[in-house]
Amino acid sequence: MSNYAIGVDIGGTNTKFGIVDRNGEILYQDRMLTNEPDDVQDFVDELYEKLAPMIEKYGGHENFIGIGVGAPNGNFYTGTIEYAPNLKWKGIIPLAKLFHDKFKLHAKLTNDANAAAMGEMMYGCAKNMKHFITITLGTGVGSGIVIDGKIVLGHDGFAGELGHTIIRPGGRLHPGTGIRGSLESYASATGVRETAIELLSKNPKEESLLRDYSINDLITSKTVYECAIKGDNIANEVFNFTGQILGEALANFILFSSPEAIVLFGGLTKAGNLILDPTRAAMEANLIKIFKNKVKLIFSELNEADAAILGASALVWEK
Amino acid sequence: MSNYAIGVDIGGTNTKFGIVDRNGEILYQDRMLTNEPDDVQDFVDELYEKLAPMIEKYGGHENFIGIGVGAPNGNFYTGTIEYAPNLKWKGIIPLAKLFHDKFKLHAKLTNDANAAAMGEMMYGCAKNMKHFITITLGTGVGSGIVIDGKIVLGHDGFAGELGHTIIRPGGRLHPGTGIRGSLESYASATGVRETAIELLSKNPKEESLLRDYSINDLITSKTVYECAIKGDNIANEVFNFTGQILGEALANFILFSSPEAIVLFGGLTKAGNLILDPTRAAMEANLIKIFKNKVKLIFSELNEADAAILGASALVWEK
Repeated sequence: MSNYAIGVDIGGTNTKFGIVDRNGEILYQDRMLTNEPDDVQDFVDELYEKLAPMIEKYGGHENFIGIGVGAPNGNFYTGTIEYAPNLKWKGIIPLAKLFHDKFKLHAKLTNDANAAAMGEMMYGCAKNMKHFITITLGTGVGSGIVIDGKIVLGHDGFAGELGHTIIRPGGRLHPGTGIRGSLESYASATGVRETAIELLSKNPKEESLLRDYSINDLITSKTVYECAIKGDNIANEVFNFTGQILGEALANFILFSSPEAIVLFGGLTKAGNLILDPTRAAMEANLIKIFKNKVKLIFSELNEADAAILGASALVWEK
Repeated sequence: MSNYAIGVDIGGTNTKFGIVDRNGEILYQDRMLTNEPDDVQDFVDELYEKLAPMIEKYGGHENFIGIGVGAPNGNFYTGTIEYAPNLKWKGIIPLAKLFHDKFKLHAKLTNDANAAAMGEMMYGCAKNMKHFITITLGTGVGSGIVIDGKIVLGHDGFAGELGHTIIRPGGRLHPGTGIRGSLESYASATGVRETAIELLSKNPKEESLLRDYSINDLITSKTVYECAIKGDNIANEVFNFTGQILGEALANFILFSSPEAIVLFGGLTKAGNLILDPTRAAMEANLIKIFKNKVKLIFSELNEADAAILGASALVWEK
């Protein structure tokens, strides 16, 4: 009997991976940069180099049931990644096959955000919920939608791309998609940084701690947070603006599937109430009466990397 | 054995009702104005007066399996209508119970748009589809979402209120909800009329056939259509503007559930390609690559009233 599964979470910046047992315990985990290897084969090879010694340590291939992978635009039905805007691998990539060929293990792929939702449903704060939506606020904005206890995949496996919904028509251009005004252009780490730079240039005379950082690389959602908790006006305004847009978008999602909760993951959630309060206010203000004060807006209780690795590994536990 | 069901479709303006047999044939149908009776009990009484002779004609109560009702904000789980913005019945109305008490028949309630989607799935152009969304462009904008062959109800029965999603933040005020910029404020009959009036006042020097109609009551989506097919610029611009907004909203819906098709119903679809072409163009322009040129955008093949009556009646056929 196989005792272990491998879970891999491919994000726009980092790839996290781990070895998971049947009880959902992560026995080993590590990470690598997603876009550093030149192409996708190099990426798979490099990941294999890192995992091979651990596979040996845990009893070799025959002790592993398979490898589950979550990746942007990952398609559960076909095992391919198609045109992922945040990755440098272009076109249609047969990722499940590449993993299978290299690792000689049963390989299953899904959207990275769907994997996180699955992890949350199996081990996190959505454990007893049949209707919820997870939103990952990371390099990009991902989403996993659960209805009646099942991940929504759609007719072709690509459902749940809520980061690309339009919330400011004609607004900020998304360099990866060429579309204006999508949620991801505002509520991602990149979006927060861009909002900070915009507010600084729009208010050239207003003092701000953010002006001590170089625009080129030091203004990040982390530095904005650090300035905001020191009471910096512009930094706080960045979170209010981001929360306003995110909250409006969440109201739209609620109108679709009427979930019991929305679970927020990812880097931006480290800003705590600075982002949660304006988001909740805008969400409630844009809901029709039947939905008001009903839907829980919560942060994931799981460590973000854990949720994604656990969720990805769950793909191969479930047959 | 009961041979017939009653299907009732309650809309913002008209209520349509009919007697349906097991094969989905409508043997009798009629309509009444929804908001003419003073309160909901008067409404149920008046509807009963109209249906009672037909119930007799088709073999009396014992020959009827029940009465299925579709209504705005109708909740399948609870049998109540809650705070429907387009009806004059306020608060929480136990509609299924009122129907049961009056008709002495098993009564089931759902959202009017969900009933239409069910009709489309059982008898219309979505007959072989497991993933689709219906959008009703009537007095208001309703929606029914089907995923894996099931209507999406959400954790509380209120899912699928896409007409209230925000698509122009800070935009037109919806008098029923108090929310700005929702799809329904633009893509409904009322929205089309308002757009026509706005464009006429913004372009006071531009000639338009629409100026021959009185603003107070004669500009409707029908008169706008009649002027548009005669080549009137402003009337055509009304449909382009409406289609632009509707298309953006549809792109958002596709990102949620990745349906095989979106089926449009309702009064506005009578404008044919005048509304379909700009809607499709805006929809495609706002989709990320994996969804482009994939999702069918079609008009319902069923007579609108038929779809809703059939769908409502299906509530009682299915146990």
